[in-house]
Amino acid sequence: MRLSRYFLPVLKETPSEAQIVSHRLMLRAGMIRQQAAGIYSWLPLGYKVLKKVEQIVHEEQQRAGHIPLLMPTLQSADLWRESGRYDDYGEEMLRITDRHGRDMLYGPTNEEMITDIFRSYVRSYKDLPLTLYHIQWKFRDEVRPRFGVMRGREFLMKDGYNFDLTVEDALHAYNRHLVSYIRTYERMGLQAIPMRADSGPIGGDDTHEFLVLADTGESEVFYDAAVTDIKLGKREIDYDSHEACHAVMEEFTSLYARTDETHDAALFEQVPEERRRVARGIEVGQIFFFGTKYSEVMGATVQGPDGKPTPVQMGSHGIGVSRLLGALIEANHDDKGIIWPEGVTPFHVGIVNLKQGDAEADGACEALYKSFEALGLEPLYDDRDERAGGKFATMDIIGLPWRITVGPRGLKNGVVEVTSRRTGESEELTPELAIAKIAKIYADL
Amino acid sequence: MRLSRYFLPVLKETPSEAQIVSHRLMLRAGMIRQQAAGIYSWLPLGYKVLKKVEQIVHEEQQRAGHIPLLMPTLQSADLWRESGRYDDYGEEMLRITDRHGRDMLYGPTNEEMITDIFRSYVRSYKDLPLTLYHIQWKFRDEVRPRFGVMRGREFLMKDGYNFDLTVEDALHAYNRHLVSYIRTYERMGLQAIPMRADSGPIGGDDTHEFLVLADTGESEVFYDAAVTDIKLGKREIDYDSHEACHAVMEEFTSLYARTDETHDAALFEQVPEERRRVARGIEVGQIFFFGTKYSEVMGATVQGPDGKPTPVQMGSHGIGVSRLLGALIEANHDDKGIIWPEGVTPFHVGIVNLKQGDAEADGACEALYKSFEALGLEPLYDDRDERAGGKFATMDIIGLPWRITVGPRGLKNGVVEVTSRRTGESEELTPELAIAKIAKIYADL
Repeated sequence: MRLSRYFLPVLKETPSEAQIVSHRLMLRAGMIRQQAAGIYSWLPLGYKVLKKVEQIVHEEQQRAGHIPLLMPTLQSADLWRESGRYDDYGEEMLRITDRHGRDMLYGPTNEEMITDIFRSYVRSYKDLPLTLYHIQWKFRDEVRPRFGVMRGREFLMKDGYNFDLTVEDALHAYNRHLVSYIRTYERMGLQAIPMRADSGPIGGDDTHEFLVLADTGESEVFYDAAVTDIKLGKREIDYDSHEACHAVMEEFTSLYARTDETHDAALFEQVPEERRRVARGIEVGQIFFFGTKYSEVMGATVQGPDGKPTPVQMGSHGIGVSRLLGALIEANHDDKGIIWPEGVTPFHVGIVNLKQGDAEADGACEALYKSFEALGLEPLYDDRDERAGGKFATMDIIGLPWRITVGPRGLKNGVVEVTSRRTGESEELTPELAIAKIAKIYADL
Repeated sequence: MRLSRYFLPVLKETPSEAQIVSHRLMLRAGMIRQQAAGIYSWLPLGYKVLKKVEQIVHEEQQRAGHIPLLMPTLQSADLWRESGRYDDYGEEMLRITDRHGRDMLYGPTNEEMITDIFRSYVRSYKDLPLTLYHIQWKFRDEVRPRFGVMRGREFLMKDGYNFDLTVEDALHAYNRHLVSYIRTYERMGLQAIPMRADSGPIGGDDTHEFLVLADTGESEVFYDAAVTDIKLGKREIDYDSHEACHAVMEEFTSLYARTDETHDAALFEQVPEERRRVARGIEVGQIFFFGTKYSEVMGATVQGPDGKPTPVQMGSHGIGVSRLLGALIEANHDDKGIIWPEGVTPFHVGIVNLKQGDAEADGACEALYKSFEALGLEPLYDDRDERAGGKFATMDIIGLPWRITVGPRGLKNGVVEVTSRRTGESEELTPELAIAKIAKIYADL
C-alpha cells in the first residue's frame, strides 16, 4: 500500500477520553474511531490487524478440528426463555422489539442458539464428537464502557461449543481448546496464562481464563513466576489424542495461577516465596465445561450406544477477538507508539523515502515495494511529500516491526537502512539483503 | 474435510416455508437454518460459500483501489437526525433504546456514519480521491421477510462510499465501481446486467442496479438481448484511467436494459423486435452518484485548490453479499440440487468412496485427498459407511462442480471416475490424470 492512497488518519493530539495506553495509541494511530459509547469503527489500519487476529483464531480452531459456522447477531427472546436466562441476564443484555412487537435481543453469547442448532439436526452419538464455533459481533450493554476496545459494548468474539457423549470426551474437548488457545496466543506474540477462574453466568464446573499480564489489566492475578517459563512453541500436538492434550493442560495449569475470584491464600503460601507474584492481567479468553446444563433443559439429546436418549455433555469456549488488539498493544508498545509482533502486524514492513521526488530514491523504493509484493508480503510505502521526521513519527506510532529507510546518501553506497521497531537498532544492507532479511523473518514465523 | 467429521445436515424433506428453489436448496443442503423470521444461521457449508463470495468482493474492491474498514452494526440515532433520515426511514429501520435510554438503530446502510468519519479526518482536496468500503451485517425490518436469504432481515452487504473533489472525479468513481462489480460477478460465474434504476431513499441522480436474470426475480426487467453477449472477461482495466472505465461503462450500459421502475416503452420500441426481452431479475448490487446530498448537510468539506471549503462529491455502492448466494443458486441448479460455479464452490472436489472399509478403495481415496490438499485445493471426502446412492445424492444436492468416484472395480483397471456436476458427464482416468484435470480447471479460473 502506498500511503498517499491509503486512509491513515494519524492524530497528533491524544483525545482526552482515552485513559489507558492501548486506547490512546489506537486512536492516535488511526485504528479506531468511537461512534457511540463503547461502539467503534475500525479504520483501515485497525481493521487490518483485526482481520489478522481473526485469521489466526480461525486457523487454530480449524487445526483443532473445530467447524466454523456463523450465527446471526440478533436472536429471538423465546430461545433464551427456554434456558431461563432471558430474565436472569440483567441489563447488560440489549433487548429489542421488532416492528411486529416480537421480543429480540442482540446476542451477548450463543449457548442457547447453538444448542438449538444441535438438537435440530443431530440424533445419534455416532455424529459426536462435534465442536462448532463462530466469530461474530456481540453486544453487552455495559454501564460504563471504557478502555476503548478492551471494554466496548459491540465487540468481536470467537465462541465455540463442544458436544460430546461422555464427560471424559467433553473434558478432552476442554483440554483441546486449552491447547489451541495457547497456540493461538503464542502465534500472536502474546503470553496468555491459563488461570483457574470463576464460572459466572455461563455456569459450569471447570473453567480457566487466559490472562495477559499488563499493568492496566482489570483483574488482580496471583501466580507462580515459573508459569511464565512454559511455552508450547512449535511442538506438534495430536488434537485427537486425549493423552497429548491432557498432558499439555497439566503442564500449563499445575503451577499456581489464579485470578482474585478464585485466589486461595493458603495454597499461594505453598509457592516458594521468591516465585510468588501478584500482578494485573487482561482476560483474553475463557474455557468452560458445564456438562448438561443447557442440553437437559433444551432437550439436546442423542441416542446413545445403548439406544437410550442421552443429554450431551457441553462446554463453551471464548476468545475476545477485538479486545485482543487492546491486550496486544498493552503488552507491546513504548513511548513512541505501538510495536506489533510480526504475527499480527498490519503491514510487514514500512518503506520510508527520505527524498520523495528524487529519481534514484523513488526508483529504489518502488523496486523494494514490488519485490516485497512479489514475495507475498505487504509493504507500506510512505511516498508522501513530507519531511523525514514526520515519516519516522508515523512509522513509530503505527508500529510496523521493520522499517527500511531509503535516501540518496545511502544509495550512493549501494545500501538502505533496516531498522527494528522493537530494539531501535539499524543496519545498512544492500536492498537485496534487506529484502532477504525481512523475508526470512516472516518465513520463520 | 472428511464428511464423517463435518457438520452437514442434509435434509431429505423440504421444509414447508420455502417458496423458491434457492431457499429450498439452501435448507436441504444444510447451508442455513432460520432462527427467526428473516434471520438465519449460516451452517458450515453455507458459511463457507458466504466467505468465498465475500473474499471475491474484497479482492475486486481492493483491486479497484478501494480501502476496507469496518463500521459497527449499531449506530447512534443522532447521526441520522443530522441527515434527516431518522424520521424519514420508516418502520424498516430497527430502532433500539439502550439501558441509558439513548436512541440507537441497527444500521440499514452507512451514508451518515462514513460521512462522519470522513469529515472528522479529511481536510484537504489533496487527500482525494478516496473510496472507503466495508462488508458488514445490516438489518432491515421487512414486513414480510421471505425467500430465505434473498429477502432476509439481517443480511450481509458490501457498501462503499467515494469522496471526490469534482463531479467528474465522482463519475469516474461511479464507473470504476461499475467495472469492479462486473468483474466481481463474472468471477462468481454470474452474469449481472447493469440496468438504469430508480434511486429510492438513498437519493441521487445516476444509479444502476445489477440484475441476475432468473424466473424468481422480484423485478420485471426489459432489455435488448444483445446485452447478454457483453463480457468483461480477463481484460486488464486500469482503474485509475477515467477513459478506460468510462469505455467499459458505455459498453455495458448503451443497450437498452431497465427495470420496471425506469422502463420507457417508447425507447424499448426502438430495440429490434427480435432482440426485445421481458424477463425477471434478482438485484445483486446497485451504484449511486448523489453528489453533495450528504456532504452539504453534514459538513463534509475539504479545502479546495482555491483554498475555499468545498463539499465533497459522493456516491454509494452496494453489493448484496448474502443475497448473492440465493441468486447464485437460482441461476445454477437442476432438479437434483445446486450446481456451484467453480469460483464460489465450498469445496473444489468431492471424493466418493464406493466401498468404505475396503483397504484399496480407502487407500486410493486417502491418496487423492492428500494430493488435493497438497495442491492447495479443498476436497470433501465422503468417508461415511453409507451406500453409494446416498453418497451420490449428498454430492448432487450440495452441488460440488467435480466429483471423483473411487471403487474396487475401477481400481482394478487403475482408474477412478471424474464426473461434472453440471453436465453429468463422466470419464475414467488414472488418479494422477484426475488430479491434474481438476487442478488445471481451478488454476485456469
